[in-house]
Amino acid sequence: MDDLEAIRQLKARYFRFLDTKDWDGFRTVFAPDVHVDVSTDGGGTFDGLDAFLEFLVPTLTGVVTVHHGHMPEIELTSSTTASGIWAMEDLLQFQPQSGIAEVHGWGHYHETYEKVDGTWRIKTTRLSRLRLEVTAVEPT
Amino acid sequence: MDDLEAIRQLKARYFRFLDTKDWDGFRTVFAPDVHVDVSTDGGGTFDGLDAFLEFLVPTLTGVVTVHHGHMPEIELTSSTTASGIWAMEDLLQFQPQSGIAEVHGWGHYHETYEKVDGTWRIKTTRLSRLRLEVTAVEPT
Amino acid sequence: MDDLEAIRQLKARYFRFLDTKDWDGFRTVFAPDVHVDVSTDGGGTFDGLDAFLEFLVPTLTGVVTVHHGHMPEIELTSSTTASGIWAMEDLLQFQPQSGIAEVHGWGHYHETYEKVDGTWRIKTTRLSRLRLEVTAVEPT
Repeated sequence: MDDLEAIRQLKARYFRFLDTKDWDGFRTVFAPDVHVDVSTDGGGTFDGLDAFLEFLVPTLTGVVTVHHGHMPEIELTSSTTASGIWAMEDLLQFQPQSGIAEVHGWGHYHETYEKVDGTWRIKTTRLSRLRLEVTAVEPT
Repeated sequence: MDDLEAIRQLKARYFRFLDTKDWDGFRTVFAPDVHVDVSTDGGGTFDGLDAFLEFLVPTLTGVVTVHHGHMPEIELTSSTTASGIWAMEDLLQFQPQSGIAEVHGWGHYHETYEKVDGTWRIKTTRLSRLRLEVTAVEPT
Repeated sequence: MDDLEAIRQLKARYFRFLDTKDWDGFRTVFAPDVHVDVSTDGGGTFDGLDAFLEFLVPTLTGVVTVHHGHMPEIELTSSTTASGIWAMEDLLQFQPQSGIAEVHGWGHYHETYEKVDGTWRIKTTRLSRLRLEVTAVEPT
């Protein structure tokens, strides 16, 4: 499998592990020192996989999520580094007691990747948004 | 065209033939002895292409469908066999007299493929769901 | 990067430049004599990039757009020409004063591509629709 396909499938696993809440699998797609920037969603920035997971896991517990990535633009920047942009859509269904029914968003991931010991991992990721819709639970 | 790309385009034709209701084309993407498992949707399992089509064609007649596949994870398991996972979304718009307005779903296809006489075909397919929303027709 | 991947990334840039309203970038993905057929949406046909942009830019000004392409079926028809089909979804959010809240569509792009001086560009594109939903602004 060539490097571009390996990186596409790396990100595919990111999405699948995220939405099936396979957190052990999810950890394997990142470099340990990953930098995550989801400040566009009010989520802030995170340095290191542990810090990101400490935020993400409780945030998504009890939330039915769908994240899809589209039309990757991956570019090898050296034999062991790459950059990529993915269009994305996410749809989050919250527990009613949260007061939020759904969050539906569209945007782009801007990422870099690093190959260590033959395996590609996500090194940095930043989310930009085209649109973000928050639907409140309707009062009964 | 390499095997991974051939399998991606095979599944692309599956989606296009399905949504354009090109049933002659649709038949060409499957092995004759395909095993289909859509039991997660209440659709049951089917052995053989004829049995699957006898279920599918009347079920979708008069239904406007959109099925999209995303982020394929295809792995060659031999020179003539492969496995794959596709994230998916489907949106079905029914005739009003059915009482159902729309069915909107998200999940994953879990598949195997077989190459016979140089052509890849879908050998087995199973749908798992992250979320499935059924919207009833609103009473007037 | 092989030709199929180059064409996939060409179309990826089409989508990204379109939704981020990067019109200078958008121009780079087309042949100057591109033929565009969006008559299925009532948009007519356009010969040449300038004519297309004169239609498109004012049409989309003030509109938040998301266009996603899926499951490309790209075929090289010579060393410098190719054809392709992309499944697509688009979601347009208009300014309230337009009277239209949203347009949400699904369909396929049917395209040809041409390689000139080593660079692939979109030569012809035609949009067909599976479904198109127009939501009016609700009266207050």
